[in-house]
Amino acid sequence: MIIVMRENATLQELSGVIRELEARGLRPRPSHGNSRTVVGVMEAGAAQLEGVASLPGVEQVSTMSTSFKMVSRDFRAEPTVINLGGAQVGGRNFVVMAGPCAVESTGQLLACARQVKACGGSALRGGAYKPRTSPYSFQGLGEEGLKILAAAREETGLPIVTEVVSPDAVPVVARYADVMQIGARNMQNYALLEAVGRERKPVLLKRGLMSTIEELLLAAEYLLSNGNHQVMLCERGIRTFERATRNTLDLSAVPVIKQLSHLPVIVDPSHGVGHSAYVESMCRAAAAAGADGIIVEMHPEPAKAVSDGQQSLDFGAFARMMDAVRPVAAAVGRPLPDADRPA
Amino acid sequence: MIIVMRENATLQELSGVIRELEARGLRPRPSHGNSRTVVGVMEAGAAQLEGVASLPGVEQVSTMSTSFKMVSRDFRAEPTVINLGGAQVGGRNFVVMAGPCAVESTGQLLACARQVKACGGSALRGGAYKPRTSPYSFQGLGEEGLKILAAAREETGLPIVTEVVSPDAVPVVARYADVMQIGARNMQNYALLEAVGRERKPVLLKRGLMSTIEELLLAAEYLLSNGNHQVMLCERGIRTFERATRNTLDLSAVPVIKQLSHLPVIVDPSHGVGHSAYVESMCRAAAAAGADGIIVEMHPEPAKAVSDGQQSLDFGAFARMMDAVRPVAAAVGRPLPDADRPA
Amino acid sequence: MIIVMRENATLQELSGVIRELEARGLRPRPSHGNSRTVVGVMEAGAAQLEGVASLPGVEQVSTMSTSFKMVSRDFRAEPTVINLGGAQVGGRNFVVMAGPCAVESTGQLLACARQVKACGGSALRGGAYKPRTSPYSFQGLGEEGLKILAAAREETGLPIVTEVVSPDAVPVVARYADVMQIGARNMQNYALLEAVGRERKPVLLKRGLMSTIEELLLAAEYLLSNGNHQVMLCERGIRTFERATRNTLDLSAVPVIKQLSHLPVIVDPSHGVGHSAYVESMCRAAAAAGADGIIVEMHPEPAKAVSDGQQSLDFGAFARMMDAVRPVAAAVGRPLPDADRPA
Amino acid sequence: MIIVMRENATLQELSGVIRELEARGLRPRPSHGNSRTVVGVMEAGAAQLEGVASLPGVEQVSTMSTSFKMVSRDFRAEPTVINLGGAQVGGRNFVVMAGPCAVESTGQLLACARQVKACGGSALRGGAYKPRTSPYSFQGLGEEGLKILAAAREETGLPIVTEVVSPDAVPVVARYADVMQIGARNMQNYALLEAVGRERKPVLLKRGLMSTIEELLLAAEYLLSNGNHQVMLCERGIRTFERATRNTLDLSAVPVIKQLSHLPVIVDPSHGVGHSAYVESMCRAAAAAGADGIIVEMHPEPAKAVSDGQQSLDFGAFARMMDAVRPVAAAVGRPLPDADRPA
Repeated sequence: MIIVMRENATLQELSGVIRELEARGLRPRPSHGNSRTVVGVMEAGAAQLEGVASLPGVEQVSTMSTSFKMVSRDFRAEPTVINLGGAQVGGRNFVVMAGPCAVESTGQLLACARQVKACGGSALRGGAYKPRTSPYSFQGLGEEGLKILAAAREETGLPIVTEVVSPDAVPVVARYADVMQIGARNMQNYALLEAVGRERKPVLLKRGLMSTIEELLLAAEYLLSNGNHQVMLCERGIRTFERATRNTLDLSAVPVIKQLSHLPVIVDPSHGVGHSAYVESMCRAAAAAGADGIIVEMHPEPAKAVSDGQQSLDFGAFARMMDAVRPVAAAVGRPLPDADRPA
Repeated sequence: MIIVMRENATLQELSGVIRELEARGLRPRPSHGNSRTVVGVMEAGAAQLEGVASLPGVEQVSTMSTSFKMVSRDFRAEPTVINLGGAQVGGRNFVVMAGPCAVESTGQLLACARQVKACGGSALRGGAYKPRTSPYSFQGLGEEGLKILAAAREETGLPIVTEVVSPDAVPVVARYADVMQIGARNMQNYALLEAVGRERKPVLLKRGLMSTIEELLLAAEYLLSNGNHQVMLCERGIRTFERATRNTLDLSAVPVIKQLSHLPVIVDPSHGVGHSAYVESMCRAAAAAGADGIIVEMHPEPAKAVSDGQQSLDFGAFARMMDAVRPVAAAVGRPLPDADRPA
Repeated sequence: MIIVMRENATLQELSGVIRELEARGLRPRPSHGNSRTVVGVMEAGAAQLEGVASLPGVEQVSTMSTSFKMVSRDFRAEPTVINLGGAQVGGRNFVVMAGPCAVESTGQLLACARQVKACGGSALRGGAYKPRTSPYSFQGLGEEGLKILAAAREETGLPIVTEVVSPDAVPVVARYADVMQIGARNMQNYALLEAVGRERKPVLLKRGLMSTIEELLLAAEYLLSNGNHQVMLCERGIRTFERATRNTLDLSAVPVIKQLSHLPVIVDPSHGVGHSAYVESMCRAAAAAGADGIIVEMHPEPAKAVSDGQQSLDFGAFARMMDAVRPVAAAVGRPLPDADRPA
Repeated sequence: MIIVMRENATLQELSGVIRELEARGLRPRPSHGNSRTVVGVMEAGAAQLEGVASLPGVEQVSTMSTSFKMVSRDFRAEPTVINLGGAQVGGRNFVVMAGPCAVESTGQLLACARQVKACGGSALRGGAYKPRTSPYSFQGLGEEGLKILAAAREETGLPIVTEVVSPDAVPVVARYADVMQIGARNMQNYALLEAVGRERKPVLLKRGLMSTIEELLLAAEYLLSNGNHQVMLCERGIRTFERATRNTLDLSAVPVIKQLSHLPVIVDPSHGVGHSAYVESMCRAAAAAGADGIIVEMHPEPAKAVSDGQQSLDFGAFARMMDAVRPVAAAVGRPLPDADRPA
């Protein structure tokens, strides 16, 4: 259940609501959005909330039947738009985030950043902390990787997207990143969601590889109910029986999420299919399906990548993909940002 | 293993090969394609085929490592193009087949046919024989339904696509249909595949809802190895854990099949997602992904449909979908056929 | 909807019900069980059946909310027991059916039959018609295989279980087999289900690897509603993402089916796991879970089997499995038949 | 790659190996097991390890082809046995851990503890920290719940099993718990695995509902390579398309894991099937399959449970389950501990 406060409610009114709820044995959890504060209460029965709707400052007690609340279109009708270095994610444009799976060196990353910039991409991705299935695999450069990312931003102006894998690491990642990524394996790591939810930085939340769309929305609810409203949802493929692709990219998640939620949707075709040969096709399809953007793995020499080389585009393939996506994005009325600028 | 005969091989040479293989204890199975005859042999070891490559009329003994042979790009490099009432499936155009799940009445079907025609569709679909999960569900109008389909073709000129559900029914369906559809449940009904494989009519072969792409190609191999080379493969959603959609539409099957096979690929977003609200998004995505066409369920009054009403577009939604797909198809260089015609 | 006739209803009363239903525009489908005749009608509304319950000879009009009717425990409370050469499937005993995947030769099959007999098995399995994913794989010996099976029955007294893959082949298979098997790929081959439903021979219906338990029950409903009530359901593994096993054996299907239906449940651990090393463990588990029996693949020389060698037990492993299953079956009160006989 | 030190190697020899590996640019990670120390190195090529096998104190450089190392049967042939309040998990006995999903009150938990004890269970389970899909659901009593668990141990002597959900909470949970549980959602929460791996308390590691058996073994590898060798693996159902059960309990994981690893395997039928009516059947099946134990949810009043009531046994059903499992466990030679004690 959530209690929505009026836009012009006072702090005193909020305190009054909180004290009243506590007096009823509930644990109120206030969350301050851009225009509105809401108070979540866990597992309250209708009886326990009787009369709350008429307390001073309260606009309504939500009786939404969906399990998710603040991420719902019923809670907020207009789409959430997130500023990403000038591009508006969820707004008019189709945005492309690209870069290597892992930051390996300054040279590798800078080369990628320049190619992203040159081809019209809106952000640079790169992992400094890598969650790996085996303890014996390369786990990322850590803060050194974050510094390399910051240097690339310095040179190109591209905002950077990078993963955070534990609550401890949230402060250091938040210091460097423009977008904090929560990976598929951590979609239901609630301690991490709460820590990231307390930051005020945009988040890219990836769908777990065997998570339903409803569970993805509920994971996002952890972020919003902790006060972080700048959340992008990312479809990156689900695990199925099919073996021709690494995962099965569920592009129908795009219209489903658009119907249920006001949050922007990004598609990750690289993890979705797992083979570079199929990535461009899925980038085009994501744009046509109505996604707000894509996040794509690219590497100067995919065959030498320390991770995910098989699914990374080389620079030529990336440039061709961008050329192929541009007219499709335009055809659905969501041009790439560079198409809006004078040459 | 398959033995490929030279283009100008004689019937006598073919007989010679067959007799020789039989003498070695094998069961040769000749298949006559448009330009080429091949002879399949089951489970032959390399030793049993020694010397066969130098028999008169033999071009090569295929040593392909893929389990499928005649459907493979290695077997035939150029794409298969199938004529569908003037539209070329697998050729320059993006084709749209549409109509109701089941033929219910002359009035219902004719209304659909006119709408398909008016909006630029290339073929009319409609089920006369319906495979149903429950024995107590409506099983279709049978031959009466085929006659109604034929009447609609008569009036509109649209070729008709309709399902065949048992070997017995192949002759009657072949008499009326322009394209015989093999449904998802029957993808591995080998008696049916063989019966349809002996016809010389185009086939739309749907992927089983829990079949891999490789199994789909092997099912198509049953058709080609029986001599029917006019096969379209259809992605229609696979069964996964996700419940927001009826199935999970695997659009990555499009680039995967295009890489492995020369056969055209059609996408069925209606069964893929199962909710009319998500169909248009997936039609656009299918066009952008590189599919050769789509097959879409439409009904004059979806709420009253005897089957699949939830996923059927009404006439207005169908027209809007066509308007939305047209620029996307054009953006990837595969315009709808009507875009090629003078107004 | 189904109309259940009284036990002592006359044929005239039945005709009266049928004529009345036809007069109301319905298509009645009578089905004659051992003690009871029922009349199924497709998609009738409650209004169309008004007053039918009081026609002469009618016991009740079923208002079951489950999609399946005659297979339901609500329709028949006592378990269905099927006589299998003296063993009672679904009765007191736990039965073991075993033999090779495919009948390859008289010698191979007779050796298997003797081992099944010697170890206390109740039936001999062996495929004469093999549905194969590839058209180039061995498809079985056909009627010759059926004759070999009959010869093995002649010698050992074991009833034989063998697959039927097309409606055309039902008569010949019914002539030889004691139990007709419908394979996983054909679970929703409705023409086949109807043809087998018109026979009066026990059927082993395997769950499709893509099918829910409800769909399995509805496939069985096709058999019962066509008059064949001697149906055993077979869990044989479903397709999941796990790759350590060929399929994922869903043993929880045993208690689920037992709760919903009166039909016996057989487990096929060989196809379920796909590796001989894991078969015995799952045979024990099937007995403990409450299954009525198991069907197991065995081969004199698994490494030389023409199909499914990897999952076939050799004779020694089969004997050890039987020794391991016997005390488990006894521990759950369902001893093997030989335990009931004097030594 | 891992370097295995001799049993009698000195600390100086270990330091020598570590310095040598660091000099070669590798990052050695020593792990001290009961009888053996191993040094893991990430992503080392064979060339980089040349000569390491002949350094003083080194027994061998593992060239295992499996991705997991220390959890492998190749690394340690004899089964790992874990002492659980006198019961030997992985040893002679079949152990039962039971209790409520969540600790709700002292009264509720003590009642459960007494019933577990009375029926012959070996450990008490109960969640104090609950990972929940929705931020608005009950998240557990926290340390208060741990204190209630400790009180129940005090009274009954039963060791307690309880979940830890974040690295921060590891110290407090380790202070109270006898077995730290890592839940399915956290199976690939590497920060948590590393923190628990640094403890010296037994761990129950649950398979993720989206995880392959190989991934489960690799998650365990994180624990062992950090020095914690007392790991029990827990199969608790995987996510599939089937909807009759909450998950699909993959009992074939038992023989697969037994073949690959020396670690004990526990089965959780409650989460596996999700309905109390099916739990007993799967408890029996788990014992017969060769599992080392089960963990079962039980509640004094399932209908009033704050979580997972649908799948919890009431006290009567729990007692009946124990009576049913006892003879099955005995039949496979793994009696419950109480069967070994004089009455």
